[in-house]
Amino acid sequence: MQYQRFGNKVVARLDKGEEVLETIKSLCQKENIKLASVLGIGAVKNTELRYFNPETKQYHDQIFENSYEAAPISGNISRMNQEVYLHLHASLGGADFGSIAGHLKSAVVSATLECVLDIIEGGVEREFSGEVGLNLLNFK
Amino acid sequence: MQYQRFGNKVVARLDKGEEVLETIKSLCQKENIKLASVLGIGAVKNTELRYFNPETKQYHDQIFENSYEAAPISGNISRMNQEVYLHLHASLGGADFGSIAGHLKSAVVSATLECVLDIIEGGVEREFSGEVGLNLLNFK
Amino acid sequence: MQYQRFGNKVVARLDKGEEVLETIKSLCQKENIKLASVLGIGAVKNTELRYFNPETKQYHDQIFENSYEAAPISGNISRMNQEVYLHLHASLGGADFGSIAGHLKSAVVSATLECVLDIIEGGVEREFSGEVGLNLLNFK
Repeated sequence: MQYQRFGNKVVARLDKGEEVLETIKSLCQKENIKLASVLGIGAVKNTELRYFNPETKQYHDQIFENSYEAAPISGNISRMNQEVYLHLHASLGGADFGSIAGHLKSAVVSATLECVLDIIEGGVEREFSGEVGLNLLNFK
Repeated sequence: MQYQRFGNKVVARLDKGEEVLETIKSLCQKENIKLASVLGIGAVKNTELRYFNPETKQYHDQIFENSYEAAPISGNISRMNQEVYLHLHASLGGADFGSIAGHLKSAVVSATLECVLDIIEGGVEREFSGEVGLNLLNFK
Repeated sequence: MQYQRFGNKVVARLDKGEEVLETIKSLCQKENIKLASVLGIGAVKNTELRYFNPETKQYHDQIFENSYEAAPISGNISRMNQEVYLHLHASLGGADFGSIAGHLKSAVVSATLECVLDIIEGGVEREFSGEVGLNLLNFK
């Protein structure tokens, strides 16, 4: 990864072989980013997408090994238990331009991934909601 | 909904059962937001997508009852006739990770929906264009 | 195209018949925008999408003539050889709401395209990487 901070924005280039979530988390730790939105385009492979069934509160995960164009990877950075918490979703286009989408559990950069982090001055913590079955943003 | 405003940003959590467009509109009314971009991830159900045919100027709407992962919901807030006007599109991933996309007419939060509004100081009004068949941003 | 600049944001309306990349590039030249993120929704036709195969470093392009809903067009503006360099990806919904996605090589606005440019004070140059086979952001 290479990146540069410009005030409340970070422009980052993630490189071939880097895992997307771990790499963005390490950037947030280095730059002490507590709250931000994330928008990224590029290409990823070995992508694990997650679908959450709100009725059963169960997950269904699937790995897509091939390289896909990220169009985009989007989401937010918050905190949970004082740690960086990254929540990303992805829309991905394949070799036939057909699209898949879901919660992004993990992915490896296959060519390059260009992300802009828009840092928000402040902080929001997450808390697990048994009712929903997810770690929700909590503004209390 | 819970939300917090941080300067020109609003981070919002829409909750299970809330209709997406009405809830974001009510937030804009409370916070007097006239112009903004919107980016949201989460999960929605009973989603009504719209496809506009530019040649016939006719709409085609379809309801998707199941829960889909929003990846993302994106668009903008402007004004029309002094009222909040929300224009959103959605890319949505289903239980099989197949993706659908279109103009977002309405949707109900099925798990959580996390939105960042990036407020722009200023205002843009919309006006109906008979030529295009849509309410267009109008900068005059 | 009509547009208005509000501080570090530009709200733009691209019009029927305008080519997306050329029109945004001309906006960047007029406003001397060197670095920005881009988010756009609307509808486009005659869209040329590109898929990059990282292993062979070869492209595969395909034209989609029909009108699709952009959900969204996203990416960034940087510089290469002192010229505006626009890197966009697109997720697009068709008449049956099925979605396609990829690198956006070109597209013509079919109804309207509403873009928000979030200008970043600073600059990043691109350089061709023979190793990756792409023009990468370069922070040196």
